[in-house]
Amino acid sequence: MKNVLNVLDKKLHFTEASAHCDVPCGIYDPITAQISALTVVRMVDLLNEHFDHEVGSADFANRASRLVATKEDHAEKTKHEVRIIWGDFMKEAHFEKYPELNAIVHRIMKLGSENKQHVDRELAIELLEKVNEFAEIFWDIKGEETVRAKAPYAPNLEIVYRKI
Amino acid sequence: MKNVLNVLDKKLHFTEASAHCDVPCGIYDPITAQISALTVVRMVDLLNEHFDHEVGSADFANRASRLVATKEDHAEKTKHEVRIIWGDFMKEAHFEKYPELNAIVHRIMKLGSENKQHVDRELAIELLEKVNEFAEIFWDIKGEETVRAKAPYAPNLEIVYRKI
Amino acid sequence: MKNVLNVLDKKLHFTEASAHCDVPCGIYDPITAQISALTVVRMVDLLNEHFDHEVGSADFANRASRLVATKEDHAEKTKHEVRIIWGDFMKEAHFEKYPELNAIVHRIMKLGSENKQHVDRELAIELLEKVNEFAEIFWDIKGEETVRAKAPYAPNLEIVYRKI
Amino acid sequence: MKNVLNVLDKKLHFTEASAHCDVPCGIYDPITAQISALTVVRMVDLLNEHFDHEVGSADFANRASRLVATKEDHAEKTKHEVRIIWGDFMKEAHFEKYPELNAIVHRIMKLGSENKQHVDRELAIELLEKVNEFAEIFWDIKGEETVRAKAPYAPNLEIVYRKI
Amino acid sequence: MKNVLNVLDKKLHFTEASAHCDVPCGIYDPITAQISALTVVRMVDLLNEHFDHEVGSADFANRASRLVATKEDHAEKTKHEVRIIWGDFMKEAHFEKYPELNAIVHRIMKLGSENKQHVDRELAIELLEKVNEFAEIFWDIKGEETVRAKAPYAPNLEIVYRKI
Amino acid sequence: MKNVLNVLDKKLHFTEASAHCDVPCGIYDPITAQISALTVVRMVDLLNEHFDHEVGSADFANRASRLVATKEDHAEKTKHEVRIIWGDFMKEAHFEKYPELNAIVHRIMKLGSENKQHVDRELAIELLEKVNEFAEIFWDIKGEETVRAKAPYAPNLEIVYRKI
Repeated sequence: MKNVLNVLDKKLHFTEASAHCDVPCGIYDPITAQISALTVVRMVDLLNEHFDHEVGSADFANRASRLVATKEDHAEKTKHEVRIIWGDFMKEAHFEKYPELNAIVHRIMKLGSENKQHVDRELAIELLEKVNEFAEIFWDIKGEETVRAKAPYAPNLEIVYRKI
Repeated sequence: MKNVLNVLDKKLHFTEASAHCDVPCGIYDPITAQISALTVVRMVDLLNEHFDHEVGSADFANRASRLVATKEDHAEKTKHEVRIIWGDFMKEAHFEKYPELNAIVHRIMKLGSENKQHVDRELAIELLEKVNEFAEIFWDIKGEETVRAKAPYAPNLEIVYRKI
Repeated sequence: MKNVLNVLDKKLHFTEASAHCDVPCGIYDPITAQISALTVVRMVDLLNEHFDHEVGSADFANRASRLVATKEDHAEKTKHEVRIIWGDFMKEAHFEKYPELNAIVHRIMKLGSENKQHVDRELAIELLEKVNEFAEIFWDIKGEETVRAKAPYAPNLEIVYRKI
Repeated sequence: MKNVLNVLDKKLHFTEASAHCDVPCGIYDPITAQISALTVVRMVDLLNEHFDHEVGSADFANRASRLVATKEDHAEKTKHEVRIIWGDFMKEAHFEKYPELNAIVHRIMKLGSENKQHVDRELAIELLEKVNEFAEIFWDIKGEETVRAKAPYAPNLEIVYRKI
Repeated sequence: MKNVLNVLDKKLHFTEASAHCDVPCGIYDPITAQISALTVVRMVDLLNEHFDHEVGSADFANRASRLVATKEDHAEKTKHEVRIIWGDFMKEAHFEKYPELNAIVHRIMKLGSENKQHVDRELAIELLEKVNEFAEIFWDIKGEETVRAKAPYAPNLEIVYRKI
Repeated sequence: MKNVLNVLDKKLHFTEASAHCDVPCGIYDPITAQISALTVVRMVDLLNEHFDHEVGSADFANRASRLVATKEDHAEKTKHEVRIIWGDFMKEAHFEKYPELNAIVHRIMKLGSENKQHVDRELAIELLEKVNEFAEIFWDIKGEETVRAKAPYAPNLEIVYRKI
């Protein structure tokens, strides 16, 4: 499916769209959002594992506090990075070509907040999956192929990578 | 028009929507985004005025640098505050009721970036106007009436306030 | 009382005072400090409610951590915003006209810290009230009338608004 | 003069005052504010020296931008650090003992902003001097003696140090 | 060469080393440092191109200011990300195996600062190259193969990627 | 021992080394890193004391959260400040003269992270001691004598001060 769209894209000459988005830098890469989303899953795993142990020591509270804070930061970073690509790089023409795009972005914002509010692996997995879908669309717009591969660090979940 | 929508809103009972968004705090207020957008206009005015003067002194460069940085911060803050309300408070039901809402939010993101990139009063005014429209929809969702009044500080442009 | 001071203000022509404070921007508005103070109260309420429930789950610790952090941020923001208006906008002449002003500002700093250190509704209410008093003086200096009205979000406490 | 106040201090037993301020940490040290104030002077010197050279190259603009930003940060840090000590550590009893204290703090806030707005060695020197006076009072409250000595880095101006 | 080291690594069983570094998260990835280093090059290019044009307008100063600030942020981010991997993940055993490692890290810190201080393509290229070397060592420690490929955004320089 | 090195230093004329490091500011002072390291110790003491009390109230969780966060910030600050002096001020010639320097810096990074991860007085004391050693080398490079004295605030541990 992506290939068809890709060809269409080249035929439709979205040059004015990509031209402008190259200012101020053009270095957009969803990988940072994806790593952040993966980190959210990791924190949920560590928190769940952590709370299987006894509660009440200073060391315990210290670790719980830090895991929650790291989860918070990365959920925020996920949202922030996606917002930048959506707001600066993506344009009206892309919303027409990918009618689900705005809904995916809004869902990422929502899931980012829900993952801040809860410690829930399913919610974290869904966040990562939505960011992966977002990355797929992004690379498709750029005319690059993608591949899904397991991340080289725990939790070794699938990440959408640009094919090199 | 707002009144009709308001009545519809009450009839349609969007209670489940507003219920969840009250977690974690429910203190959403577009006024901070509006003050930031107004500040962007102010910085553009001060920059334009400033560059009518001679160029080249340390004091001149100092002021130019600070005005640009303040403009940058407030353009970012405008985008960030709007993203929070859109992502956390607004829901599918609202996008159906206000079909222009997603486009307004995306336009604010774009205008925020364009106002970072340029010193252009028209772009700044448009940013403020879009944030005002966003505030109108926000208060309408909350079932509150709004009023337009001049801000009590330069540039004394119209801001959408909740009617008190 | 404010009206008398207001008239005095106009008679005494504090023009040189307000002239300089308009650099670099003049967009001072205590509403952000007030919303932050209100948020501190809200966090105290949510924390107290939260700790009525069972303790020990990851979800519980997650929420407790986030409520404390939000309280912390907003107590800091309250202090920071008030410091800016006090330090940049207010001048010797205002301290003579409002002899309690310095003590109110110092009390806000103290209450900001105490609200960071504790979860105590009375302390939070007092912070909000002091910031309201500060806002009343601020708007009085600007020659604007104020009105007290309940905030449109929980906790629906009274906020001092500029009369529009 | 300090010695007399010091003796008075010990006689008046400000124990209840210092007791509470030890929570949450008690590690207050004006040296960070003083180093920041000194850095503001340094930036002014570097900016003045810099603008004696030709204007217009990328390298020139790069350096000017960075010097202004560093000055901005340290002027802000000076204000922030002083606000913390004033707001958290200093109390009503201290304002009675040192009647000029509130005015010194307010002057530091004002000078901090003026040093942001201008590139003016006299203003920067005055900021450093006011912070030095603040440090003298601080250490006097703590019952520590102070000494003035030149800083071991340019601009080698006098700093008030605690006598070790 | 990497393959030999890789085999050695597996023979030497650095298990105790990698075991501890997996706390608190183990999600280390030099790609963020590499993207930042690439952005530094990009900013240098844009600045050099920008200063070929006329100087003196508000729009010109606005863009120059922003390019410098973005360069500054990414030079800092490059240093920060490398410091984290070096300080948290790398250990005595790695310094023995890769005797040049500490010097590479220190050179990155130096180059980060020099790229902040100047607008010089050669310095920016060298920063990127050193971070690439750092990435090669990192992935080698992790037992992953790497490949050099051009980045999919300007300046399309070579980045060391993990082979997927 | 320091004196001998000092004399050597003057004989070896490290002028080209110190010349460059004076750009952009030359105001390097390890005292901020030392105060941060001391604060880490203080937080550990307060946390240990705190967890001797009953667990479970909102006030308890609030204080635990804040102590952990303050410890985190100051451990990070310790690392950041040391990295700046090491990366910007120290040079190849210094690593030859003080062969243990790189290892001390790497140990500070490691200890900074370990102190984030744990509540352990021994680890915190070691961090402070390593930063003190770093300060001794720093002042020795600058040709200044140092003295060890107890800090004037709890925990009243020894700090390496420049002799005034």
